[in-house]
Amino acid sequence: MNYVLGVITSFSGPNTKEVTLKARGQAMTTAVDAVEIVRHRFMKELSIGKITLGSQEMPPREGENKPTTVSTIETTLILP
Amino acid sequence: MNYVLGVITSFSGPNTKEVTLKARGQAMTTAVDAVEIVRHRFMKELSIGKITLGSQEMPPREGENKPTTVSTIETTLILP
Repeated sequence: MNYVLGVITSFSGPNTKEVTLKARGQAMTTAVDAVEIVRHRFMKELSIGKITLGSQEMPPREGENKPTTVSTIETTLILP
Repeated sequence: MNYVLGVITSFSGPNTKEVTLKARGQAMTTAVDAVEIVRHRFMKELSIGKITLGSQEMPPREGENKPTTVSTIETTLILP
């Protein structure tokens, strides 16, 4: 719900017509949930603009020596 | 990697130009990972077509009495 609040707060700025949520790894689920909650429960006038999937290389975790690749998602919400 | 193999196998069918992955809840992360692995490691010629986010109401889990809503993602991969 923090993300939901963040999106709604972002749209409350003057002249803010677009908000993009970026997330990687397991947080992608949270980001999609936030998008769905915002547009179905709070701001029904929003539409989904571009959705982009990607990959990002992360430095090795402690105790490991190989970098890991995580997936990313970027979702843009648009106010008409 | 089962999903990766599933996508590659699906494309091996005759005249298969598009494969759509659907996932809900935590599995959305797995689906995005599979898309990224397929298109960066195995079938670099693929492009991402439509990505759709949605919500789906699920029957109550055992011991609960309220239906829960889960987010969904559908990603279409296209062979040029």
